Amino acid sequence: VSRTDQPTPGTVRPGGRTARVRAAVRDATLAELAEHGYPELTVERVAARSGVHRTTLYRRWGGVDGLLVDALDLAVEDGWHPPDTGSLEGDLRELADEVLRAFTDSRHGGAPAAFVSASFHSEPAARALRAFLVGRHDRAATIVVRAVDRGELPPDTDPGPVVRATVAPLYYRLFITGEPIDETVAEQAALAALTAARAGVFSRAHRPS
Amino acid sequence: VSRTDQPTPGTVRPGGRTARVRAAVRDATLAELAEHGYPELTVERVAARSGVHRTTLYRRWGGVDGLLVDALDLAVEDGWHPPDTGSLEGDLRELADEVLRAFTDSRHGGAPAAFVSASFHSEPAARALRAFLVGRHDRAATIVVRAVDRGELPPDTDPGPVVRATVAPLYYRLFITGEPIDETVAEQAALAALTAARAGVFSRAHRPS
Repeated sequence: VSRTDQPTPGTVRPGGRTARVRAAVRDATLAELAEHGYPELTVERVAARSGVHRTTLYRRWGGVDGLLVDALDLAVEDGWHPPDTGSLEGDLRELADEVLRAFTDSRHGGAPAAFVSASFHSEPAARALRAFLVGRHDRAATIVVRAVDRGELPPDTDPGPVVRATVAPLYYRLFITGEPIDETVAEQAALAALTAARAGVFSRAHRPS
Repeated sequence: VSRTDQPTPGTVRPGGRTARVRAAVRDATLAELAEHGYPELTVERVAARSGVHRTTLYRRWGGVDGLLVDALDLAVEDGWHPPDTGSLEGDLRELADEVLRAFTDSRHGGAPAAFVSASFHSEPAARALRAFLVGRHDRAATIVVRAVDRGELPPDTDPGPVVRATVAPLYYRLFITGEPIDETVAEQAALAALTAARAGVFSRAHRPS
């Protein structure tokens, strides 16, 4: 540990000083984004908050959009795994609950919501957010695959729509109608997706007539 | 008709010149919004497009946000009614299809999507959009009330979540993940909401355990 924490100047080691700087810059970027929003986000503020010199930030990240994109890249690398409770109902409830917590738990400091808002101000942020979510959805497909293997769902169930139906009502209220979300909203969304999936609504063969 | 089209100077008549000016300004505002987005929207551009003098626009609408808010107010006054096909399945399919068309039919010129985007740039636009959608959802509740009366749904079904579940997957893809929408997405959303509502997922008494 001591060796990786004290890299030879000029070298880059995973888990070492470079990784710590990157994490500190990510934390500062998300905190500034959550507090002030994208229109007020500046490299200078991230520099002041992270303690990393602004010329370093400009050189390594290019600017505000580069800082945002890297923050989401780091979140992807953090290795999220979908819930695995043993049942489809448990997994979908947990998936909806994770979204609920991401946007309401004060420990996240409002960063997830600020990121979605930033996607409407910056095309690079929008692309990064979309890549992040598509990656999450792809990994969450495992939930549906396992449920099919357990015989809980029709074999030709398309995982993508099941996952999206589980989280969409939460995002809809948060970002489109501006309505609050709570555990009832999350669990209704999960149970609605579950019920529809069991009934074959999301079967690949299903083409609504 | 000829009388209301030629009002006495200084008077304001519904359906007369004032209403025509208002509609022309609304059309110009939506067209500019759709073409250039909120950050580029200016009173000067709306003036040039509508043929209404900019001093009139400033005096009557105050500025860009006033123009946007009035455009949505006009849409509310236009008297939208929810579909009434005779069955819950038909009504929910039509409701989802209306959202699909609003965001994909070229006749709308991209104005609905531009409005949602504007809500992330302007608090008055966000409030106007939310009031507009809440009003639509309130009226769409009739669909569920009629279905309960026909015996298609449990009597204690809460209309709000049914309506929101029907449209949420479309908004989620359009504005959060940036994925395309089509008839299959719309109809799966409608059928998922239908299936869940029939199963009692949206019953008021239902508290997920």
